[in-house]
Amino acid sequence: MGFGQRLTEATRKSGTPLCVGLDPRWESLPMELRANRGGDTPDSLQAVADAYEEFSLAVLDLVYGQTGVVKPQMAFYEAAGTQGLAALERVMRRARAMGYFTILDGKRGDIASTAEAYAQASLGGARHAQATFPVWQADSLTVNPYLGADAVEPFISEARKVSGGLFILVRTSNPGSGLFQNLECQGEPLWQRVARQVGAWGQTHVDSSTLADVGAVVGATQPAELAWMRRQLPAVPLLVPGYGAQGGALDALKPAFGPKGIGAVVNSSRAILFPFKPEATDWRDKIRQAASHSARELAGISGMAGA
Amino acid sequence: MGFGQRLTEATRKSGTPLCVGLDPRWESLPMELRANRGGDTPDSLQAVADAYEEFSLAVLDLVYGQTGVVKPQMAFYEAAGTQGLAALERVMRRARAMGYFTILDGKRGDIASTAEAYAQASLGGARHAQATFPVWQADSLTVNPYLGADAVEPFISEARKVSGGLFILVRTSNPGSGLFQNLECQGEPLWQRVARQVGAWGQTHVDSSTLADVGAVVGATQPAELAWMRRQLPAVPLLVPGYGAQGGALDALKPAFGPKGIGAVVNSSRAILFPFKPEATDWRDKIRQAASHSARELAGISGMAGA
Repeated sequence: MGFGQRLTEATRKSGTPLCVGLDPRWESLPMELRANRGGDTPDSLQAVADAYEEFSLAVLDLVYGQTGVVKPQMAFYEAAGTQGLAALERVMRRARAMGYFTILDGKRGDIASTAEAYAQASLGGARHAQATFPVWQADSLTVNPYLGADAVEPFISEARKVSGGLFILVRTSNPGSGLFQNLECQGEPLWQRVARQVGAWGQTHVDSSTLADVGAVVGATQPAELAWMRRQLPAVPLLVPGYGAQGGALDALKPAFGPKGIGAVVNSSRAILFPFKPEATDWRDKIRQAASHSARELAGISGMAGA
Repeated sequence: MGFGQRLTEATRKSGTPLCVGLDPRWESLPMELRANRGGDTPDSLQAVADAYEEFSLAVLDLVYGQTGVVKPQMAFYEAAGTQGLAALERVMRRARAMGYFTILDGKRGDIASTAEAYAQASLGGARHAQATFPVWQADSLTVNPYLGADAVEPFISEARKVSGGLFILVRTSNPGSGLFQNLECQGEPLWQRVARQVGAWGQTHVDSSTLADVGAVVGATQPAELAWMRRQLPAVPLLVPGYGAQGGALDALKPAFGPKGIGAVVNSSRAILFPFKPEATDWRDKIRQAASHSARELAGISGMAGA
C-alpha cells in the first residue's frame, strides 16, 4: 500500500479523521503520575521524562480504537532532555506496535545531507555505511518549506523508501501566520504558491483516486484555505491542527474533507490529553470520553459517519 | 554583556570570524575512531554516538584558540539516535566550559508553547513548574521564520532571558533557496521582507553601535544579498554558511563585514572537519591546519586581521 492508502485505511478503520496529538506538559499531568517524581515540581529531567512516557503510553491505550492516528510533538519531549527523547523513542515504538499511523511533528527543514539526516532519523532509519538503524520510525513527518525544493526533496525521497509521507507547512493555525504566508507574491498569496508546489511534489501510489504522499498542514482556524486546498488540490492529504483548544470551530472543518470523509486528519491535543484537573483520579475516563466525543464529532462533520 | 557584544568578543578574541560547524558523519570519520566500533560499518547506534562524541570533543580541542565560535548541527547527532543526542549534550557542555560561543543549528520553528519548549531546551533551560533544567544551553539557535512573528517571539523572549540570540533563516545557501525566498512579494523579494522583520525584532543591548540579538542566516553563495544586509541592516549579525565545501567564494564574503571585521561569522564544516582520508593517522594535524588556514583567510577578508 502507498502512503495515501495507508493514511486513508487508518482513518477508515477507526471511523474518524481524528488525530490525537501527544503534547505532554508537566504542569498538566495527573498528580498521580507526578507524585513520586517530585510532585508539583519535578526532581529531575529523568522524572519528567518518566512521567511523559507513562502518560503517553497510557494515552495510546486509552484512545485505542477511537483514533487510528497519533502525532507526537517532538518539542515537548526535547524539553525533557535526552531522557525525554529516549522516552519518545519508546512511545513511537509502542504506537507502531499497536498499529497507529504516526505523524512525527518536528517541523524539520534543512538542506542536502542535513535534510537527509533528519529524514532518515524520522522515517526509515539512519544509514551509516552499510547499516540502517531505526530511530523514530514514523510514518510521516511535518516539514517546513522555506528553504526550497532541493531542501524538501531529500525528505520526499526518504519517505518514498518506506511508503511514508510528509506534511508540509502551508498555512499554520497561529494568529500571526499570515505575516509571510499571506503576502501577495507574484499574483497569489505565498501559502497558495507553497500549496501548489506541495501538489506538484506528491505522487499517488495506485491511481489518481488515492491520496498523494506529500500532504499539507493547514490550520482549522483557516476555513477558506481549507476549502481552497480541497478544491484545487484534491489529492493532497491535509493535516489540520488548531481544532478545539486553539479555537478552530467544528463547522469550519467541513470543507477539508473529500468524498466519504477522506482527505484530512484533524489534530486535537490538549482537549483530549488534559480534560481534567491534575488532582483528578478519574483522568483515564476523562481522556477516553474526550477522545470518544471528538472522534464522533469529527466523524459526523467529515461525512465519514454516514459513509 | 548583551548578545551582540558577546558574539563580537568571541570573534575578536580569536581574531577571526570563523565558525567551525560540527557535522559528524560516520563515513568521513578517521578509521582510528571507528576501528573498535565496527570499522567500516558501525555495530550499533551507540557506536556511532560514541565516535561522534570522541570526534567532536577532539575537534573542540584542535580548533581551540583558532576560532571562538562553534555550530553543532543537530540533525547529524539525531541521526545517531537518542544516544547521539546524549553525545551532543556532552559536546555542548564541553564547548561552553571551554568558552566557545555556541550556535545550535536546529532550524527550529513552531508556535506558542511548542516554540517555547524548543527555545527553553535550546537556550536557558527547560522549565517545569518551579524548576529549570539545562538541556542544550546554547548561546544561540537557528530559527525558521515561515510561521510568522508570533511563532518567533517565544524564541526571542527566551533568548533575552539569558543574553542569548537567534539566527533567523533569511536567504539560505542551497542552490534552490530562491524558490520561495526570491519570490517578488508586494514589491520586494520575500527574503528582504523577512530580513527587514529580523531587523525589527532585534534589540541592541548598550547602544546602536553594538550588534542586535536577532541575526540572519545568509549563504556565502549569495554575495549581493550579503551586501544588501550589511548596508540596510548594519546591526543585524550574520551567520554565513556555505563557504568552502558548498562553493561560496572568499571574495564574495567581503561585503558581509562591517568596520573592523565585525558583524558576521562564517561557518565552515566539512573543509575543517574532514580534510583527510579516513585511513590517515595525522588527521589531528590536518584539522588543526585546516582551521588555521581558514581562520587566517577569513581574518584577512573580513578586515579583522589589520584591525
